[in-house]
This record gives sequence, structure tokens and C-alpha cells, in this order.
Amino acid sequence: MATQKQKTWKEKLYEIIYEADTPAGKLFDVVLLSVILASILLVMLESVKSIDNQYHSILDILEWIITILFSIEYIARIVTVNKPFKYIFSFYGIIDFLSTVPKYISLIIGGVHALAALRALRLLRIFRILKLARYLGASNNLAAAIKSSKAKISVFLFAVLIVAIILGTIMYLVEGEDNGFTNIPKSVYWCIVTLTTVGFGDIAPQTPLGQFIASLVMVLGYGIIAVPTGIVSAEYSTQNKKDKKEDTSDLHLNTQTCSNCLAINHKDDAQFCYNCGHNLKDE
Amino acid sequence: MATQKQKTWKEKLYEIIYEADTPAGKLFDVVLLSVILASILLVMLESVKSIDNQYHSILDILEWIITILFSIEYIARIVTVNKPFKYIFSFYGIIDFLSTVPKYISLIIGGVHALAALRALRLLRIFRILKLARYLGASNNLAAAIKSSKAKISVFLFAVLIVAIILGTIMYLVEGEDNGFTNIPKSVYWCIVTLTTVGFGDIAPQTPLGQFIASLVMVLGYGIIAVPTGIVSAEYSTQNKKDKKEDTSDLHLNTQTCSNCLAINHKDDAQFCYNCGHNLKDE
Amino acid sequence: MATQKQKTWKEKLYEIIYEADTPAGKLFDVVLLSVILASILLVMLESVKSIDNQYHSILDILEWIITILFSIEYIARIVTVNKPFKYIFSFYGIIDFLSTVPKYISLIIGGVHALAALRALRLLRIFRILKLARYLGASNNLAAAIKSSKAKISVFLFAVLIVAIILGTIMYLVEGEDNGFTNIPKSVYWCIVTLTTVGFGDIAPQTPLGQFIASLVMVLGYGIIAVPTGIVSAEYSTQNKKDKKEDTSDLHLNTQTCSNCLAINHKDDAQFCYNCGHNLKDE
Amino acid sequence: MATQKQKTWKEKLYEIIYEADTPAGKLFDVVLLSVILASILLVMLESVKSIDNQYHSILDILEWIITILFSIEYIARIVTVNKPFKYIFSFYGIIDFLSTVPKYISLIIGGVHALAALRALRLLRIFRILKLARYLGASNNLAAAIKSSKAKISVFLFAVLIVAIILGTIMYLVEGEDNGFTNIPKSVYWCIVTLTTVGFGDIAPQTPLGQFIASLVMVLGYGIIAVPTGIVSAEYSTQNKKDKKEDTSDLHLNTQTCSNCLAINHKDDAQFCYNCGHNLKDE
Repeated sequence: MATQKQKTWKEKLYEIIYEADTPAGKLFDVVLLSVILASILLVMLESVKSIDNQYHSILDILEWIITILFSIEYIARIVTVNKPFKYIFSFYGIIDFLSTVPKYISLIIGGVHALAALRALRLLRIFRILKLARYLGASNNLAAAIKSSKAKISVFLFAVLIVAIILGTIMYLVEGEDNGFTNIPKSVYWCIVTLTTVGFGDIAPQTPLGQFIASLVMVLGYGIIAVPTGIVSAEYSTQNKKDKKEDTSDLHLNTQTCSNCLAINHKDDAQFCYNCGHNLKDE
Repeated sequence: MATQKQKTWKEKLYEIIYEADTPAGKLFDVVLLSVILASILLVMLESVKSIDNQYHSILDILEWIITILFSIEYIARIVTVNKPFKYIFSFYGIIDFLSTVPKYISLIIGGVHALAALRALRLLRIFRILKLARYLGASNNLAAAIKSSKAKISVFLFAVLIVAIILGTIMYLVEGEDNGFTNIPKSVYWCIVTLTTVGFGDIAPQTPLGQFIASLVMVLGYGIIAVPTGIVSAEYSTQNKKDKKEDTSDLHLNTQTCSNCLAINHKDDAQFCYNCGHNLKDE
Repeated sequence: MATQKQKTWKEKLYEIIYEADTPAGKLFDVVLLSVILASILLVMLESVKSIDNQYHSILDILEWIITILFSIEYIARIVTVNKPFKYIFSFYGIIDFLSTVPKYISLIIGGVHALAALRALRLLRIFRILKLARYLGASNNLAAAIKSSKAKISVFLFAVLIVAIILGTIMYLVEGEDNGFTNIPKSVYWCIVTLTTVGFGDIAPQTPLGQFIASLVMVLGYGIIAVPTGIVSAEYSTQNKKDKKEDTSDLHLNTQTCSNCLAINHKDDAQFCYNCGHNLKDE
Repeated sequence: MATQKQKTWKEKLYEIIYEADTPAGKLFDVVLLSVILASILLVMLESVKSIDNQYHSILDILEWIITILFSIEYIARIVTVNKPFKYIFSFYGIIDFLSTVPKYISLIIGGVHALAALRALRLLRIFRILKLARYLGASNNLAAAIKSSKAKISVFLFAVLIVAIILGTIMYLVEGEDNGFTNIPKSVYWCIVTLTTVGFGDIAPQTPLGQFIASLVMVLGYGIIAVPTGIVSAEYSTQNKKDKKEDTSDLHLNTQTCSNCLAINHKDDAQFCYNCGHNLKDE
């Protein structure tokens, strides 16, 4: 008898936690996001010495409240889903786990606590909640452009790495240890800092020859920066044209999640899960 | 009787202040821009200690002259326009107000005065005065390209922020407080400085592991910079093609401002305001 | 009687100095470029204290030799050309003058001498000498792309300047004089350094609020960098397509210079100057 | 009699060393790459003082082992190939030589040893081994884009250099030696650092006028960065379209190396070397 009752409970909870179509589901997601944002802010504030010294106990209590809330949510997610292990080892499942655990571990070992900042990854859920098919389309588009230029960018990055190792070694030989280029890994680090036009300035060439080589490295980096931009630009342009033909903006995706396989982004009129064939409306 | 006379005064002033079609209107605008430029220069010079010490009284007098001129202009704008509140709460109305008020407040509270630099925003009027349909077209084109890539850039910036929070936390754990990464917000700040390839160097990783992660951050930032460029490039290219078909350069817009609703950029042969239907020629 | 002889002298010299079609003309140009390069190197070496102290007299003598050579060349150019004033006030005429004069002035006033480095501009002649129609085409193409995107880039730079003034003022108010933001011009300077992602780090925000605003400035600069790139990319792409249709690489331009109006880049089979109608072959 | 036996040895070794089609050849290449990576890591670790002090003898022994392995490989390559001199003076031949020699020289002269880091160039072999036609196509595509924009980028870099020399000289005159601009070469170096938006900050303008000029330099650099990006972007886009028509991904290239002329990337069904006509299958 309890099974029947518990089952409806599970179903109701499932709809609230995993979906954002019902008012309750929407409210849950908005509250969840607010709590996540608050928890990230909390972790940051705790790391600031002056604030932590003054409000340590308050921050600690708030952190425990959030950790317990997250723990309840995590357990609820496991209980309500059909295949708990699929959730536990999914991307979001691991992130959810890592968002709660550090606080408990910090009871035993200190310092680990800051890892809780990984819960920033939970913010990725925002895309699902806002139901912004428009935004999803945009990010899909971007992802496709990046994906199709992956091979080219790999070749490019590999070439950059080889250049950095060789030029870094040359700079180590030219500048020497007295000018901050204390070893080859550090020189290679400097070379990457320079090639990417970041230029911290913590290490900088002092000898005329070193400055001359550095100039070449910079102009090279300047020219190199054009390459990935050109690649992504061209690929994105192609994706954009494809996109216009297919017109994905007309696709009405909803936030339903298949309770069987956790696939998301079902079409509004979908009867069955596109991934596992589970009946979506039946639940 | 005075009403009739005052009405013609108002109308004349309106044409001079709000429009740039008559010689008097053009002259007014050129003088106004010169005064704005002078006033910005003045605020800057006042902030330089050595100059302020030597010429304090002269700068103060000049500043008062400009403030009074701006006050008169502000009142004249309110008096001559049909619907004063519409002007007062418009973008330019608020800017004009903020350009005059700080000096008066500085009589009571010091320091606020520097806010007068916000009058730099008044320079935006230059686009109206120069009547550069060409430039307006160009900026419209740009704005359209930026607007249509807004969703994509938002997704992108959001992803960058999450990356910065996570990598910032990792750097905080790796480098620790002894190497300048005193707290997570500061580490996140460092991460943004590095990802955007700015690289101040006020904080820089000291440990080999920190430098290794920093290298990854930089290469990531290097690759990331390609994305918004690619987006804007592709969108702008599309806008450019559209533009060529529509050929907006043939549109002859003038600087008339509807005295009823303050809408600008009416077509040269427009009889009525495109926004509120007010008769433009009737004034 | 001497006039006849002098005229042929003038004509011969004109061909050698202004044109690069004859072997003598080519040799002259190669020698000239070598001397220019040597002279730039000389000016640079003279500015290095340690080198100047040791070899001052040698460097001084070499500099005088080059100055005299340049003076002779300058006089020869004036003498041989048809309309000397046209040359004197042309771009190259002014550069040639500024390349010789500083050394003479340095006899009276010191320090001015370094201005001689302006002779680097003379290197621009290289494009003419190498007769690289291919390179000329490339640079024309580039110039056209930059020219057609000038209006848009002006609008853009103007907007960036206004942003820099406003954000610079805000940073001045937030950070204050104790953190290096001693006055508004310096803050605006910092803002430009940051927006352009240069990031010297000589001035860097110290307060948390300042670092937060700085982060916004950086992300803004990061987004902004996409705009001019997008513009030039799109314009250049358009120029490239036009270029392929017109196929300028087939245009055979030579290095002849019209002795009447100094116009260059005449077509190989040109009989008359395209600019002033002067008979080119007649000379 | 020994000749016959030695010949088969040579052939077998040739297939293992130069080709990656047989299991033995593949294994050899994977082992080789691992050793190269290990050797680069070794050179880097040796340059780190603290590590070298503690584990000097171990690192030295490992380095000798690798050097001897490389020497054996180098000799094997010379012995097995048909035309040894062609290999010795080929790109890879020189790199292979430079990868082994420094250690031997370091017995006589110290310091030269770090040159061994040049063996990073050997990593370029990875492209051959992985037999990634896809990657090869990508890099060919990139190379083509860079090649076809070479003339334009040369013109551009030359212009940048002239700008850097002129602005560097102006900064030297404006800032003077007291503010770090000790000589013109250093000022030019600073100018390149700034134009490329690297911005180390080891030298930074201190005078208001210097900071004003620096702002112009930065905005210029900001605008300039758009040019090579635009060029590569447009060229790459063109290459991409060509690529799609020709569809190089269908080309099945293998890793066979012609034993006569060392040409690589033969088509899978090639009977003769496309470069020298040597019978490939006959070996």
C-alpha cells in the first residue's frame, strides 16, 4: 500500500526536480539556481580572510544549511529517477555529488573545502531552466563550429607548443638564469605568456639579443592569433548558413527529461523519448 | 498677449536647440560641442594635482561658467519642448542633468565633482550634429551585427565566467596566499585578466604547477578569443550583404526632432512624425 | 652652350634617381636602400650609451658621411626634377629633407639628432624599387579594405574613447590616488591599456570593487576586439572577391615617375602620364 | 655472400624505421615518439636547478641512454636508406643529427647541452605516424591559407616595423632615459611589445605626453590586429570552399617513404613514387 503512495510521491517529485514545465517545477529550478549562486558567493567570501575572520560562524552555518539542502536534493534526485546509477555517473550527477561532499570532508581534512567552488558548474543548468531554445540553438551552433574546427585547431596548438619549447630553450640560453629565465620549463612558460600576448611581465628579457628574439616571438604570436580566429570565423560562417536553411529556431524543445535515460530537449509534441523509446506522456 | 510673443520665442529656440538644419541651429551645436569638449578637458585637468594647485581659482571659475552655461541650456531645453517630462526622463535629458548637477552638489559635498566627467556621454550628440547619414548607417550596421550576435555572445560570456570561477578556484588552491592569490575572488580576477590576454602581472603564478595551469589558461584564452570574433565577423558579413541590397546610404535623414515626442532621424520629405504622427512642417 | 650639356646631365640623373628601369637606376636604388638601412642602424647604435661611449668618433664620422650623401641626393633630386617645389612639398620630399637636416641642426642644438630616425620612412621606397606589382596589389587591396571600413572604424573608435573616459573616471573615484590612479587622464590611460588588452601592470586596481570593475572592462575589451576584426575581415573578403574579378595581378606597372607631376605606377605601355598628360616616352 | 644477407637486413630495417604500415613499423614509431617525449622532459628537468642537484647522476645516465639510442637510430637510418646524403641533408636528417650531437659536445664544452631541446622538432613526425590524413588535410589547408596570404602579411609586417621604428624613436625623445627608454632599440622593442598588445610592463611611459602617445600606439595596435586576422580569415574561407569541391578527405595517403628520394604521402594504390618514379612495391 505504501508502495502505491510512494510511487506517486516519486512521480510528483520527479516532475518537480527534473522538469520545468509545471509551476512547481519552475519554482524549484529558480530556487535551486538562487541557492547555487548564493553558495558560490559564500565559498568566495569564506576565502577572503578579513570577511572570514569577522563572520566565520555565520558563514559556516550558512554553508552547512546549503550543504544539507544540496544533500537532500541529491538524495531526492537518486530516489525519484528510474535508473539511479545512470544519474549518479552522468555529468550532472558527478557535479551534484562534488558540490556537497567537500563540506563533509572538511570536517576531517581542512582546505578541501574550496573545491566546493566546482558547484559553479551547476550553473550550466540555467540553460535548461530558462527554456531558451534560442540560446540552446546558439550554443549548439557555436559547439558545432568549434567541433568542426577541432582537428585544425589541434594541429595548430601542437605546432604552437613545439614553437614554444624551441623558442623557450633559445631564450633560456640567451638570457640565462640571472635575468629570470632560471630553467627551460620557466622559459617555455614565458614563451607561452608572450605568444598568447598575455605578457605578465614577471619575467622579461633584459639583454638586447633577448629583446630582439622576444620581438620576433611577439610578432609571430601576433600573426598566429589570426589563425584560430580565421578558422572559427570560417567554420562558424558555414554553420550559420546551414542553420538558416534548417531554421532550428522553429523547433520547440521543452525541458522534459526522460525518466528512463535522462535525455533532455524533447520536442513539444514528442510522445516517446528519442533516445530510448520510453513513453514520455505515460508517466 | 505675452503668450503669443513667448510662443514664437519658444519655437525659435526649439529650432536652434533641437535641430541643426538652420545656420543658427548648426552654430549652436558646434558651440555646444566645443563647450562640452572644453568641460571634459577641464574636469581632467582639475584632477591633476600639480595643475590644480597652481591654477585652482582659474579652473574653478571656468568650471562655474560652464556649469552655468549648461544649466541655462538645460532649462531652455525644458522650456522649449512640448512635453518637458518626456525630455527630462529621456537618455539625453538624464545625461544633461548629470552634467550640471555635480558642481552644485560639490558646494556641499566634495569629491562628487569628478562625476562631471559623465558629460563625456554628451559627445554622443556629435553623430546628430554632423548629420552623417553615412556614419549613422555605419553605426546602425554595427549595432545590428552586435544585436543579432547578442544571444550567442551571452552564452559565450556565461561559459567564460564559469570557466574563470573554476580555474580561479584551482589556482587559489595551487598557488595559495603566499604567491598573491590571497582569496578566490582575487584568483577569479586573475583568471579573467589572463583569459582576456590582458595580463597585468600584479599577480603571477610562482609555482611550477601554477605556471603549468596558467599556460593552459592562456592557450584556452587564446583559442577563446577566436569565438566572439568569428561570431561578429560572420554576423557583420551578413548585415553587410543585407545592407548592400537595401542600400541605406540613399536614405536622406535629417536632424529634425519632433517637438512632441523627441523622435529623431526623420526622412527629408517626411510631413508627419513617424513615431507619434505630429505634424513636423506645421511648427 | 652649357645648358644643352647640363640638360642631358639632368635627364640622365633623373632617370637614375627617379626610375628603376635602367641598370643604373636599379643600382642607385639598391645602394640608396642599403645606405638608408645603414643610417637607421647608425642612429640606433648612437642612442645606446655603452656603444656610443666607445665608438663615438667613428659613429659620428659615419653619420656625417651619410648626411652628406643624403644632402647630395636631395639636391640632385631638386635639380633634376621639372617642378622642384612639387617634389619639395611632396610626401617623399619632406621625408628626404627631414632625413638630412637633423644632423646639421645638431651642430647648434643637441638631442634633435635622434629625429633622424624618421628616415625609416624612406624605407617605403622599397615597394617601388622591388617593382613588386604583386606586393603593390596586395597593399592596394589592404588599403582599399581599410579605407572602406574607415567610417565604421571611426564610429567604433569614438565610442571606445567615450567608454574609456567614463570608465577611467569611475576607476579614479573607486581606486583613488593611493592605488596609482592619481588623476583622471592617468585613469583614462589605464582604461585604454586595459581595453586594448595590452595590460602593462604599472597601474593595477587594488580594491575588490576596482578589480570587479576592471574585470568588466577586460571582458568588454575582449568583446570589443571582435568588432574591428569583423569589419576588416568582411570588407577584405569583399575586396578579395572584387579583386579576383578584375584580376589586378595582370596589370604590369613599372617604376617610371612622371618628371612633370611625380605620379608613379604607370602602366608598362603608357605613352602619357595618366595624371597630367605629360609625354613619358619623350623624356 | 654477406652482401645478400645484409641487404635483406637493410630492407627489413628500412620498412621498420621509415614506414608505419607494418606492425613492427608502427611499434617502432610509437616507441620512438615516447623516447623523444621522455628526452624533451629530461632536458627540461635537467635545467631545473633543484631537481638537477638532487638527481644529477640519474638524469645524466638517462640522458646518455637516450643519446645512445638516438645515435643508433641515426646510424640505422643512414645505413638503410638508398641515398644517405639525401637523408643527412634533409630537414629531418639535420634535426636527428642535432638531437644527438649536443650531449657528445657537452663532454668538451658545457652549456651547449640545452640545445638538445631542439629535438622537440622531432615531434613533427607524429603527423606521419598517426597516419591522420584528416589532420594532414587540415594542416595542408592551413598552410595553403597562410601561403596565399604571405605577400599581404609581408607588406603588413613591413609597415608595422616602420611604424615601430618611428614611434619608438618618438617615445625615446619624449620619455628619455630616466623612464626606462634608455636607447632607441629598447624603445622600438617597447613599441613592438605594445603594438602586439603583449604589454610586459617592464618599461612603461611615465610622462603624461608619453602616456598619451602610448594610448595612440595601443589603439593603433588594436586596430592593426584586425588586419592579419581579416586576411587569414578570408583566405582560409576561400581555401575551405576549394577544399569542399576537391574533397581531399577521400584521398587515402599512407606512410610509405620512397627509399630512393624520401618523398612521403604516397597514395594507397601508388605503384611508383610520384616524385622520382622509383618502384615502391618492388622493394
